[in-house]
Amino acid sequence: MREGLNTMTRIKKRIAVLSPVAWRTPPRRYGAWETVASNITEGLVARGWDVTLFATGDSLTRASLHAVVDRGYEEDSTVDPKVTEYLHISEAFERAADFDLIHSHYDFMALTYTRLISTPVLTTIHGFSSPEIMRVYQKYRDGYFVSISDSDRAPGLNYLETVYNGIDLSLYPLQQSRGDDLIFLGRIHPDKGVHLAIEVARQSGWPLLIAGIIQDQTYFEEQVEPHLDDRRIRYIGPVDVPGKNELFSRARALLHLNTIPERFGLVLAEANAAGVPVIAMDLGSCREVIEDERTGFLVNNVKEAVQALQKLPEIDRTACREHVQQRFSIDTMVDGYERVYDKIFDQETKKRS
Amino acid sequence: MREGLNTMTRIKKRIAVLSPVAWRTPPRRYGAWETVASNITEGLVARGWDVTLFATGDSLTRASLHAVVDRGYEEDSTVDPKVTEYLHISEAFERAADFDLIHSHYDFMALTYTRLISTPVLTTIHGFSSPEIMRVYQKYRDGYFVSISDSDRAPGLNYLETVYNGIDLSLYPLQQSRGDDLIFLGRIHPDKGVHLAIEVARQSGWPLLIAGIIQDQTYFEEQVEPHLDDRRIRYIGPVDVPGKNELFSRARALLHLNTIPERFGLVLAEANAAGVPVIAMDLGSCREVIEDERTGFLVNNVKEAVQALQKLPEIDRTACREHVQQRFSIDTMVDGYERVYDKIFDQETKKRS
Repeated sequence: MREGLNTMTRIKKRIAVLSPVAWRTPPRRYGAWETVASNITEGLVARGWDVTLFATGDSLTRASLHAVVDRGYEEDSTVDPKVTEYLHISEAFERAADFDLIHSHYDFMALTYTRLISTPVLTTIHGFSSPEIMRVYQKYRDGYFVSISDSDRAPGLNYLETVYNGIDLSLYPLQQSRGDDLIFLGRIHPDKGVHLAIEVARQSGWPLLIAGIIQDQTYFEEQVEPHLDDRRIRYIGPVDVPGKNELFSRARALLHLNTIPERFGLVLAEANAAGVPVIAMDLGSCREVIEDERTGFLVNNVKEAVQALQKLPEIDRTACREHVQQRFSIDTMVDGYERVYDKIFDQETKKRS
Repeated sequence: MREGLNTMTRIKKRIAVLSPVAWRTPPRRYGAWETVASNITEGLVARGWDVTLFATGDSLTRASLHAVVDRGYEEDSTVDPKVTEYLHISEAFERAADFDLIHSHYDFMALTYTRLISTPVLTTIHGFSSPEIMRVYQKYRDGYFVSISDSDRAPGLNYLETVYNGIDLSLYPLQQSRGDDLIFLGRIHPDKGVHLAIEVARQSGWPLLIAGIIQDQTYFEEQVEPHLDDRRIRYIGPVDVPGKNELFSRARALLHLNTIPERFGLVLAEANAAGVPVIAMDLGSCREVIEDERTGFLVNNVKEAVQALQKLPEIDRTACREHVQQRFSIDTMVDGYERVYDKIFDQETKKRS
């Protein structure tokens, strides 16, 4: 990882990264917010920043780890989510004086502590989980915000920049040759359009491998399970990083036929990094992550997705990886956040002068 | 209501009362925490304190009302409890500089903001809702706490005093003559021992009137509903203040056969205020609220409760009311809180000198 431009001047800046505590940071399997918080943390450490990571006690990091809970509440049923959230978030704010900046990945809840401290707080908005939380964002709209795609922005918030999520490309090596399967990788939930991927597989006659946690059991039972036949359409459960690479090695293309606007779509970048073309619904951020006809195809329905399958040979697998290297590497992301941090330090200096 | 001893010196002290937002303050029917927060608020205002009440927008108060939500989340299904709690609690702390003291009735959550402000915070602990929340109380054990009974204390917390809940005696006039029914008034929940009250009614042959919100539907269907006969044992739903008085006017005694330690037991004081004797399980605070053989009887099981029925004529109804007037009036409670506030102001002054 290359050195930041201003390593020498930045080395004394102390950053607190407030990660969620649903899962370990980085997560074992599922956990996009924790993945990104981890990548930012490790990227900053590599460039000489003094970073404290607030995360679960079993987290893996080269930063200083500060934990109030051993394991994530999604991984340990004895952990009370509400108690843990209040303790975890407030802990970072109680230590505010130790930091030059708190970089929060903790949704709307952390905002309610921001006006009680003088340390500036940057919030990366990983998604708006419900209309109700917009009241909180509107109240704190003058804070510092980063969007993870241009499409996932709420009006009126003080966005400093869009910083795309970065992935660790070393985890997802270019697969030397293409596989034969279509793959689906993501939460089993209607939002992710597993049923549409199945429909594409049925219409094209190509095999489909489905991987991911079941977030909506009824949806799985009603719209996924009936189509599983252990041969053409298979479900293999959640996968870790080696599991993802195994999946990518068998992939002809990733089907990502989301039914609601995607906020970023980490898996699109991961697949592309491995040289796997992506057929994605043209909703939300997909057109920011996928370059149409170069790293995959943007489609509007199942019919267009089936048609796109015929054009897969046009996609250059190494071009897919290069695209990710340029736009969605950890380095590129950390460059982005260093720019944002500098903007904040400048604005804070002006406020105080 | 009499004037406080130091009204002149206190008049400039500014108190924020942070009430829950589950229900209106005061609540229409059920809502013990909101009832007590309301009684404290109005009692302080009557004595000349400058009070700001943080509560739902539909709350009724002579204090300054500050609201971030129109209606309680238990009364309006469009209100998101999590969003509302974070917005409501933090709002009081953001205005900390406007107050000499924040008096929180908002459970463990509010504690997580206390170290971010310099205004002292007093927490009245209305109950420990789960073992998990003890972690938070232990972390903030050096704060200022009031218990609502000597029995409902957790070890290690910095309790300044027990201040018994006070009720507005004008709402519950002495019923001139006793009625014929046994009454149960409280949440329909196993903790409250409705099934034991029914058993007492069955064994004694005396009629029983049951009132209160159904908090445990299965319990109601399995252990209450089968015994209802519209004649000897009846359920009349939740009741407001006039409904309670109607109930007290028909009461021979209140049966309060709780199965877990009671934390305070507002309804015991309300019944006594109306001149209704109470037969209460000797668990938790009941022996602090009921004076055995003077305002009712403390029992250990159904058999003793049935035996106690025979001794009801020994109870002097006016003595019941006098007992409440002395120990559980708003005035007595506000006296207690004024003592506690003074202790806090003294300690804060010492800290700063």
